[in-house]
Amino acid sequence: MNKFRVLFMVLISSSMLAQQKRARDYGIEIGVLEPGKNNAITDVKGVKVGHTTLIEGDNIRTGVTAIIPHEDNIYQNKVPAAIYIGNGYGKLAGYSQVKELGNIETPVILTNTLSVAAATEALISYTLENPENKEVKSVNSVVGETNDGWLNDIRGRHVHQKHVLEALQNASPGIVQEGNVGAGTGTVCFEYKGGIGTASRVLPKSVGGFTLGVLVQTNFGGVLEINGVPIDKELDRLSKYSQYSADGSCMMVVITDAPLDSRNLERIAKRAMLGLAKTGGIASNGSGDFVIAMSTAKENLVPNKSESSFNALKVLRNEEVTPLFQATIEATEEAIINSLFTAETMTGHEGHTVPSIPTNTIIDAMKKFNKLKK
Amino acid sequence: MNKFRVLFMVLISSSMLAQQKRARDYGIEIGVLEPGKNNAITDVKGVKVGHTTLIEGDNIRTGVTAIIPHEDNIYQNKVPAAIYIGNGYGKLAGYSQVKELGNIETPVILTNTLSVAAATEALISYTLENPENKEVKSVNSVVGETNDGWLNDIRGRHVHQKHVLEALQNASPGIVQEGNVGAGTGTVCFEYKGGIGTASRVLPKSVGGFTLGVLVQTNFGGVLEINGVPIDKELDRLSKYSQYSADGSCMMVVITDAPLDSRNLERIAKRAMLGLAKTGGIASNGSGDFVIAMSTAKENLVPNKSESSFNALKVLRNEEVTPLFQATIEATEEAIINSLFTAETMTGHEGHTVPSIPTNTIIDAMKKFNKLKK
Amino acid sequence: MNKFRVLFMVLISSSMLAQQKRARDYGIEIGVLEPGKNNAITDVKGVKVGHTTLIEGDNIRTGVTAIIPHEDNIYQNKVPAAIYIGNGYGKLAGYSQVKELGNIETPVILTNTLSVAAATEALISYTLENPENKEVKSVNSVVGETNDGWLNDIRGRHVHQKHVLEALQNASPGIVQEGNVGAGTGTVCFEYKGGIGTASRVLPKSVGGFTLGVLVQTNFGGVLEINGVPIDKELDRLSKYSQYSADGSCMMVVITDAPLDSRNLERIAKRAMLGLAKTGGIASNGSGDFVIAMSTAKENLVPNKSESSFNALKVLRNEEVTPLFQATIEATEEAIINSLFTAETMTGHEGHTVPSIPTNTIIDAMKKFNKLKK
Amino acid sequence: MNKFRVLFMVLISSSMLAQQKRARDYGIEIGVLEPGKNNAITDVKGVKVGHTTLIEGDNIRTGVTAIIPHEDNIYQNKVPAAIYIGNGYGKLAGYSQVKELGNIETPVILTNTLSVAAATEALISYTLENPENKEVKSVNSVVGETNDGWLNDIRGRHVHQKHVLEALQNASPGIVQEGNVGAGTGTVCFEYKGGIGTASRVLPKSVGGFTLGVLVQTNFGGVLEINGVPIDKELDRLSKYSQYSADGSCMMVVITDAPLDSRNLERIAKRAMLGLAKTGGIASNGSGDFVIAMSTAKENLVPNKSESSFNALKVLRNEEVTPLFQATIEATEEAIINSLFTAETMTGHEGHTVPSIPTNTIIDAMKKFNKLKK
Repeated sequence: MNKFRVLFMVLISSSMLAQQKRARDYGIEIGVLEPGKNNAITDVKGVKVGHTTLIEGDNIRTGVTAIIPHEDNIYQNKVPAAIYIGNGYGKLAGYSQVKELGNIETPVILTNTLSVAAATEALISYTLENPENKEVKSVNSVVGETNDGWLNDIRGRHVHQKHVLEALQNASPGIVQEGNVGAGTGTVCFEYKGGIGTASRVLPKSVGGFTLGVLVQTNFGGVLEINGVPIDKELDRLSKYSQYSADGSCMMVVITDAPLDSRNLERIAKRAMLGLAKTGGIASNGSGDFVIAMSTAKENLVPNKSESSFNALKVLRNEEVTPLFQATIEATEEAIINSLFTAETMTGHEGHTVPSIPTNTIIDAMKKFNKLKK
Repeated sequence: MNKFRVLFMVLISSSMLAQQKRARDYGIEIGVLEPGKNNAITDVKGVKVGHTTLIEGDNIRTGVTAIIPHEDNIYQNKVPAAIYIGNGYGKLAGYSQVKELGNIETPVILTNTLSVAAATEALISYTLENPENKEVKSVNSVVGETNDGWLNDIRGRHVHQKHVLEALQNASPGIVQEGNVGAGTGTVCFEYKGGIGTASRVLPKSVGGFTLGVLVQTNFGGVLEINGVPIDKELDRLSKYSQYSADGSCMMVVITDAPLDSRNLERIAKRAMLGLAKTGGIASNGSGDFVIAMSTAKENLVPNKSESSFNALKVLRNEEVTPLFQATIEATEEAIINSLFTAETMTGHEGHTVPSIPTNTIIDAMKKFNKLKK
Repeated sequence: MNKFRVLFMVLISSSMLAQQKRARDYGIEIGVLEPGKNNAITDVKGVKVGHTTLIEGDNIRTGVTAIIPHEDNIYQNKVPAAIYIGNGYGKLAGYSQVKELGNIETPVILTNTLSVAAATEALISYTLENPENKEVKSVNSVVGETNDGWLNDIRGRHVHQKHVLEALQNASPGIVQEGNVGAGTGTVCFEYKGGIGTASRVLPKSVGGFTLGVLVQTNFGGVLEINGVPIDKELDRLSKYSQYSADGSCMMVVITDAPLDSRNLERIAKRAMLGLAKTGGIASNGSGDFVIAMSTAKENLVPNKSESSFNALKVLRNEEVTPLFQATIEATEEAIINSLFTAETMTGHEGHTVPSIPTNTIIDAMKKFNKLKK
Repeated sequence: MNKFRVLFMVLISSSMLAQQKRARDYGIEIGVLEPGKNNAITDVKGVKVGHTTLIEGDNIRTGVTAIIPHEDNIYQNKVPAAIYIGNGYGKLAGYSQVKELGNIETPVILTNTLSVAAATEALISYTLENPENKEVKSVNSVVGETNDGWLNDIRGRHVHQKHVLEALQNASPGIVQEGNVGAGTGTVCFEYKGGIGTASRVLPKSVGGFTLGVLVQTNFGGVLEINGVPIDKELDRLSKYSQYSADGSCMMVVITDAPLDSRNLERIAKRAMLGLAKTGGIASNGSGDFVIAMSTAKENLVPNKSESSFNALKVLRNEEVTPLFQATIEATEEAIINSLFTAETMTGHEGHTVPSIPTNTIIDAMKKFNKLKK
């Protein structure tokens, strides 16, 4: 990437930041629980998100999103985790070891389908190059993807290791950029422009006061609903569904500070699919719908080496997890809707254009169905 | 059960039949696909449903629902099948063998949690007593359940083998009785009276023209929505959710005439959970949410014995199953809502009363949110 | 059962006890780890085993084996657990809830295929009738089975609830009766008489000093090997395998006092299948091979109700579990071989006779292959 | 790689080929079924295997093994398949999509742990560069690995895309080179030199006459047994097991011409672990033990595009698969033992030397235990 392109991207990014109005900014309130301060996955303390956005020439519309679950060396302080496969038509890396050992030892990277190898490689580099990890000979990179091949020259494999490392370096807490950024640069959702979205929920103190955040990369289809309003019916877009062109994928990352072991994190992960359902998603045959769930509670992080043969854990009892299920469902639904509101019309590969959602029309529909907060 | 009680039950049943107005009768149209003739699981040719309803004295409010997938000897002509565990806090019988062999060899029985044994026993009897099965020494009974212990004296274990056999004998095609019948007699859903519900979808000819039906036994909680209308918010019932008393379960049976193997049936089964999500279900910790999916296409039924070492199959290609996913989601959502509309206020065990949904209030809400068909 | 029959059974039992020579008594030493005091599942402190043996008339050859993991109320102090399905052609009850919640809340019962319902019912009764459990309305009975239909009139369903409750009442620590007892009364293994077998291992102090015990109900086939000696080849029994009549099942129960959560218990459970493999088992199509694994470490028992929202756990780190894998493999192999050595020739249903292993011939073979300890 | 090194490698390879005596060459006959012509995975018609062996300087001891299941374009003619995770501490790529769709669309590559990305990339290139695949935008690379970091400078990531493409180009039917080649160049098995091994079985005509072959990459530990002879006990190597240094991994690829769907292929895959068990493997905590199973029966290959909505299949009935289970177990056991007999002493990274098995001593042990065919 030459300097001009970098400058171009920075400008693009700034302009997008300026414009990002999210669902709640329009008065759309999803669910019954309260969001966190930024209504973002970064509301979970210690979580950082970084993007590398690749928009070059006519054909490159792709990128990388990095999610770093905590601030320490993740390999040396592994994070209790689970991955749920909603629909497995995808190339996610790292499933087996997470399932077997119950933890994640790298940041999580999202990118495009044919760049999983580049991201895997980058996470290995990221881990090996940390001087504390100089003995490490095995790294389980966790990489998710969706296929942005409609807007992006995906066969060109334009994401390289350096882009992934940039996203990791860029990662920061606080507000998360959404829409056409990072791994969401070239994605399509309900035949509108999709992208990155995020949301969070904070439980009432009476049920633990935990924070749970979700970040999604939206690239899927179905019959769009926004907070219960049947957008696709209302906008008479249903004819297309006679062809059921609903393929695509959704990557979902859920992080909470609630102390959960991998078994209950897998249960959390399954609930993200229920949130996806409420947007009209159907997890079509061609979808790679994966949910990666992590718990960052300090007391349960797993040291890579330990002088003790035991881990002392403090975990939520099974009967206490239901409010976190509700939080997961709500935050996933809202994160998906946020990805639609923040994404902008994009033209890319082979001249394909994907429009952003028609905000005004949708707001009218929300009013018609009495679903805007006054 | 003495004769008086039988008479009483017949009267109850008749009166319920007379009153059963379903969601569509009120103008509530869920989804974008068309229902079948009876909007019931029995729209799939050959499928029969039967109930035994036990309402006796002050404390017995339970029963049995039998679903028979086809008219031949099921043991000798096994049905390709899969079971998906949405949330496994339940006592369903028969999971392992269905998973391993990919088929079901008995009718499916639904009943209460502590009566799974009685139903298992009954399915064995049902199978062994068929003269064609006189060599059979192994039967994999498939029995689902939910816990009706709020309205029913569940510890009394009032369902006996004979009640299950009655439900099997009563089974018939055509209109399916819903609400407070069979396995739904004593169930509670979103803290209203739940019960049995059913719905179906017929795919357009262009995507195969297949029929898919769903039958549910609803006994779960969450934050109720009806076709996207936030009933619990609107009716100000949310305070209770500060206690998150959302436990319970939902049994879902999906049958289609589309020719599917067990792998794709498992995918179908997973989608029923997406339908549940759209009613506000969250698959709480205490839920036993199971989906049993079967394909009745004649050409793929599995003969118990065969002179050939091979089965010749004709199965839908992976990329053709997406419309069936949509059908599953819609029919599950509508079946659940039908269970609420058809169930009536019930008083039972320890004087507990569970009200039916307040139909008028709900219809008003549907109107307010512009969700009634005019 | 009349008094005469009870007397008869007691006599049978006594005579069997007197004769039970196990593999080690003949100088067969399996594996590299040391067994516990009784080389039995009851070497794990607190574990009790009880049998009800039904040998009546010409046709009834069946029974019940109960394994009680600890001495307290199990429902109120649930046991971390996992179930692994080696091959799922079986009717085990209780899988889903164990998978979802990670624990077992009843004793484990083994019986015959068509008596799972009776045992399920009995475990419910056992639980409900405990005055401490008077609020309980949901019980997840864990029942395993194999099919003893060759020697037993299995279609007669002669095991009743009372037999299961007897086995529970009979349960005791210490020496475990093996062979033709309890759930092993009518089973067949490698076309010899199988039955109940048990074994245990104690880890060296350097790797934790934990005890792990296995109990099996053997009813399966394959190509028999004993401690690496190819018995079936040597005894020229291979012709039968041209028909591959290897169907059957093996139930395996593994209990350890090592502090493990359900994830690592599932890994333990998978290793029992490796022990089965070493006896020549192949987990044939018709096998229901299930492994139930439990950890009795006091500190991790799960109270049914708790004033805290959290459980404080102390669990073995992943990298410490390998010795327990070795122990599981060895104890399972030895338990299976013990079931063969202790079982005696049995004649039953339809005049079928299944011979015990020809001990002398086998000992000769062990010598020929230099596998007897001198 | 300079020309000298290439020459060096060719010489190495030739000398290895000349020396490769396998278990059967010594009179060790594992199991009861007959091997195919070459006792190799390539006995299944159409299967090709290729290696790239990287032995350079003092520190590079690694490589790539490619398995090509049939001779046509695999992406356009996908292979029914399943992957079983024996122990998931590994980085295998491709699991989810195989599980979801039931097929594999690339050759299978084996390499070292930190080179999975390079191999993933190479399989994408291999697929995209085929002119028939010019529309392809999604490729599910299937790559297995074990960790050769003891003998190989694994952190140097010396396997590159070109090495993988070379292995694919080199692939040929017929005799398969074993031992220190390809992905087995730097592996360690039972603390001896491991490597690549293969074996096959042909079923008697009476049970179908199918061929099943296995190829393994052995890098695991446990307590070594060869055809039932307790080598580690006999050679007094047990002291090391007091430290239980049994970590490592085993990749197993099973291919058969028997017509099987993915469900029965998963069952086949599970049986490979039983074969591993018979060598003394225990699937230790640190193992990544994966089995990839494929069926090459022409009639069931899955066309990428089809004019029909249906696939017509001819699959083996469940009750016919047991002989294939036996074949899988035997061929896996023998393939592992072959990897040990064909591997040679290797010195590599940091001066580590791993000895080959002491053939003479082992043959003596086999004699002592009467296990050599005369």
